[in-house]
Parts: sequence; C-alpha cells; structure tokens
Amino acid sequence: MSREQEFIENLRALAGDPSARGLLDDAAVLEFGGRKLVLTHDMIVEGVHYRADDPPADVAWKLVSVNLSDLAAKGARPIGVLVGYTLGDRDWDRAFADGLALALAAFSVPLLGGDTVAASAPRTLTLTAIGEGEAVPSRSGAQAGDLLWVSGSIGDAGAGLAVLKGELAGDEALVRRYRAPRPRLEAGQALAPIVTAMMDVSDGLLIDAKRLAAASAVGVEVDLDQLPLSEAFLSALGDEREARLFAASAGDDYELLFTAPPGAAPAILHLAEASGVPLSRIGRCVAGAGLVLLDVGEQLPLPERLGYEH
Amino acid sequence: MSREQEFIENLRALAGDPSARGLLDDAAVLEFGGRKLVLTHDMIVEGVHYRADDPPADVAWKLVSVNLSDLAAKGARPIGVLVGYTLGDRDWDRAFADGLALALAAFSVPLLGGDTVAASAPRTLTLTAIGEGEAVPSRSGAQAGDLLWVSGSIGDAGAGLAVLKGELAGDEALVRRYRAPRPRLEAGQALAPIVTAMMDVSDGLLIDAKRLAAASAVGVEVDLDQLPLSEAFLSALGDEREARLFAASAGDDYELLFTAPPGAAPAILHLAEASGVPLSRIGRCVAGAGLVLLDVGEQLPLPERLGYEH
Repeated sequence: MSREQEFIENLRALAGDPSARGLLDDAAVLEFGGRKLVLTHDMIVEGVHYRADDPPADVAWKLVSVNLSDLAAKGARPIGVLVGYTLGDRDWDRAFADGLALALAAFSVPLLGGDTVAASAPRTLTLTAIGEGEAVPSRSGAQAGDLLWVSGSIGDAGAGLAVLKGELAGDEALVRRYRAPRPRLEAGQALAPIVTAMMDVSDGLLIDAKRLAAASAVGVEVDLDQLPLSEAFLSALGDEREARLFAASAGDDYELLFTAPPGAAPAILHLAEASGVPLSRIGRCVAGAGLVLLDVGEQLPLPERLGYEH
Repeated sequence: MSREQEFIENLRALAGDPSARGLLDDAAVLEFGGRKLVLTHDMIVEGVHYRADDPPADVAWKLVSVNLSDLAAKGARPIGVLVGYTLGDRDWDRAFADGLALALAAFSVPLLGGDTVAASAPRTLTLTAIGEGEAVPSRSGAQAGDLLWVSGSIGDAGAGLAVLKGELAGDEALVRRYRAPRPRLEAGQALAPIVTAMMDVSDGLLIDAKRLAAASAVGVEVDLDQLPLSEAFLSALGDEREARLFAASAGDDYELLFTAPPGAAPAILHLAEASGVPLSRIGRCVAGAGLVLLDVGEQLPLPERLGYEH
C-alpha cells in the first residue's frame, strides 16, 4: 500500500458522514438548506504539480482549474473559492495575484477568503472550491452495460510537459494544455443528469478509469484506438500504439470521464454538437472488476504505469 | 507594507462579493438555501506555526482548533472539514491521522474530504472548516461606547512556547495551551447574538484589538491591568507590567475578543457563570481610531511588536 493510500485508509474511519462519499469521490456533497453544496480542496506543490519555471499567472490558473474541474465532474456550478498561499518572491506573488484575478474572472467565481503564510520553498498553494449541484453524479454509479465516454482530447498536457522538459518537439498548444487547463464546467453541468458516474481525468485516463471501475464495482474496457487525440498531439507524437499508451497514462488532462447507458448516446452526441465540446465513446462497463485495455479489439497487457499516484 | 499586506491588497479587488467581507474577517459568510454558511481556511507550516518536535497528534489538534476558532468567533456551529496534507514520515503520518480522529471526535465534526501530496519538507497542513451561523458577527460592528471583552486567559500559549524553547520554567499546563488550544465554540455561539463585533485572538491580543479597531473605524483602549491571567502564567511570569505586555502580544491564545454595549454586560457575565468560561472586561471602544494601551489608567507607549504578522 502506498503512503498516500495508507494515510487515506487511516482517515476513512473519520469520514463516515455520507457527505464525504467515503473519500472516494472528487468532492464532498453536503445537503444544506435543502440544496446541494459541493466542496473540493486540492493542493498544488512546486516541483510536483507545476514546474518552478512555469509563469506564476499560469500556476494561478492551474490552481483554480484543477479545483473547478472537480466541481465540473460533479455537475456543480462554482459559487466561491478560498485560497491558501505561501508567500515568496514579491514579483512572483504579484504576478500570481494577477493570474488569480484573470482565472476567477474567466469562470465568474468570487474569492471568498483564505490564508497566506510566509514560509520557505517549495511553495504549496491550496484552493477550496465551493459549488452548487443538482444531480451530483458520483464515481460509483456505473453499471455493466454502460458505455464509457471522455470529453475533449487526451494526452495533450502530458505532451506539453514533455515539450517543456525538452523531450519532445511540439506545438505551443500542447504546453498551453499543460499550463492552463480549462475545466469542463458547462459540459459537466449538462451531463450530470444523464450520466451514471462521472469524474475528472487528472492523474491519467487509465488510472482514473480503474478508480471508476473500483468505485462502481464493475469492469471497465478501454478502447485505446478510440481515444480522442488532438491535431497537435498527432503532429508531435503520431498515432502509433506507443503514442496512444502515452496519452492514456499521461495525466493533467482535466477532461470528464463518464458512463451512461447506451440509450443515452443520442442525447450525449447532441450535447457535444450543441456545446462544441467533443464527447467520445472510448469503451464500456462489463460485469466483473478491474481494467481491460483493448486496441482494435485485441487485448493488451496493462502498462506498468497507468498514471500519476501523488 | 509587508509582503502579506501587499498580496492581500492585490487580492481584495477579487473579493468584491459581500460574502468575502472584504477579506477583513476571520471567515467568509455565504447565504445559501436561506441559511448562513461560514467558511474558513487556515494553513499551518512546520517551523512557523508549530515546532518540528511537537507531537504529531498535537499538530493535528492545533490544525483543527485554529480553524474551528475562526468559526467560534463567528458564532458558527461546525458541520465539516476538508484537510490538505503533505505526506512525510509514515509513523508521523499515522500519529497525525490518529490525532485528527481525536480532535474531530472531540468537536463532533465529520471529515468531508481533502487532498494529500507527497512533497519535501517543511510540511504544510491546511484545513477548510465549514460551519453554520445565525447571527454572524463581523470584526467591523464595534461602536464607540462599547466595552471590550475577552474570554478565558491570555498569554498561556506564549508562555508555553517559551517553556518549550527553554527560555522559561513553567507548568506543563502552559505547554498544553500552546500545543492543544481549545476553540471557544459554545461561548462563541452564545455570544454571537449579543456582541457588536467578535474575532479570535490568534496573533496577539494587541495586534488583534488593533485590527478590530481598524475594521470598525473606532478607537480601542485596552486596560493592561485587566487582562485575565491564569495561575500557571502568574506562577511562571509574575504579575509585573512586563509579564502583562508579554501576554498581550504573545499570540496563539485562540480566545474570543468581542465588543458589546455596556447594557449587555449583565447578560455576558451571566453567560460566563452559566458556561464556566471566564469573560473579562479589558477595555472600551472610543471615538477616533487606533489602539491605546492603559495600565491602571496611565497611558503606555505601544510596544514595538503587538503580535505575530505571518
């Protein structure tokens, strides 16, 4: 068991309240005043979740986006954020504040409060996002027979990180996907009443699909050949199996991964057309457990690394 | 302007929503479903807010208490917390989780969610506390003519820290006040409908009283000779002016500082008697601005350091 798993197991006993969803979901869901409050809290750490040379405004954008992506996955509309901030270099702090302003304005979310501390590096930045949901899908509602879907394109952020590391020649668009992901807020709200389970893809499509399978007690088959890849990704990495395996385990996508019965497919495809957000069928749920990876129908051994565990 | 002040000034423009209370209060107050949600987010950092050799269970207790103290100051009843945690040594992590369990059980608050990251030292621990309030006093409602009050005793935690540093011989009770403060939740809820302004004393009585004065646009006079000091404090430090100045600027008290019209004094004293929590008159609000320090009626120059600014 990893240190993180062990720590979370130790905490699970404290999280008996149904609002906590057994600490197995992207967010907590609290009934309050007859409405549903959706709460999430994510930290990002220099050198772990972002690079020390990333522009501070992009770091602020990412801090906001990774948290709003959790709300998006629960179909929630954000109503406010609290920020925790480690003070450091004054110019960096100023640029971060400007970037935070930009991100919060872009998503029309007010800053409600937070805390600052003066401490030594590495910077640890935290955000608590508060949203309101109606139908609030969990990770655990997928049924055998459901289809598996994903929004947008997969692997771009991972390719962007490889570009920044000098490991890959690729378009600036890939770097933007790494540094400035966009949470799928509108799509999440529109999908929430239709899906049986939904989560965001943050650590890697395969590892997150495996978590969805475990939470729902179903098996999940992912069709590697059906993964939606962007033009920029295809130009940089091509369309071979190796490139698709890279995309499937790269992480930082902040796309929505969701399941729905086959009968919901027309509504989902209509929603994709109306919103301009691509929604792609990439597999299915089956009786059983665990993750199966298929490439044009051929079963592949699972890669050793399915995504990030941090 | 300190780096923290400058950063908060840069953020204030983002916090135009009335729920944010201009980032000048202990907590945000969000109207939701016809009820009042009170939200606070505090970080504690190793070497800044706690000592590396503090027992991990006490660090967990402090993390919970400093946040619940903000809710107490708003008269709110806690309904859940989200925790952000930097993983480190496995034994420390386990002892922290046990301590967190103990603290949350002591205050009957469920863990709703959070985030863990594996990162290098120093540890940064965060907590978001969510509460419900009815009357939710701000820092800004004090009026000239109001009396100034404080709960419990002042200076114990500061003395406890001095004991831990080997600078002072003193009772273990002082160390407990530093390591394991108790938020004044019941007293805060009972006082909320009576007071004109309330906040918690976390950075030092004098600096926090100055902040209350500024937020309320009144002057505040503090009677040094009226500060409530514990037996343990008096045994360790005595009752001279120097000891009282130490208590007034030491910080980490997590007591309630509040104002109320003179006519509310009998109700406040009754509440103290009924609850067993001492509530002491320590000064008054006057027309004007800023902080005045008196000792048996004699005006003293303000000490250079009024408390912590971190």
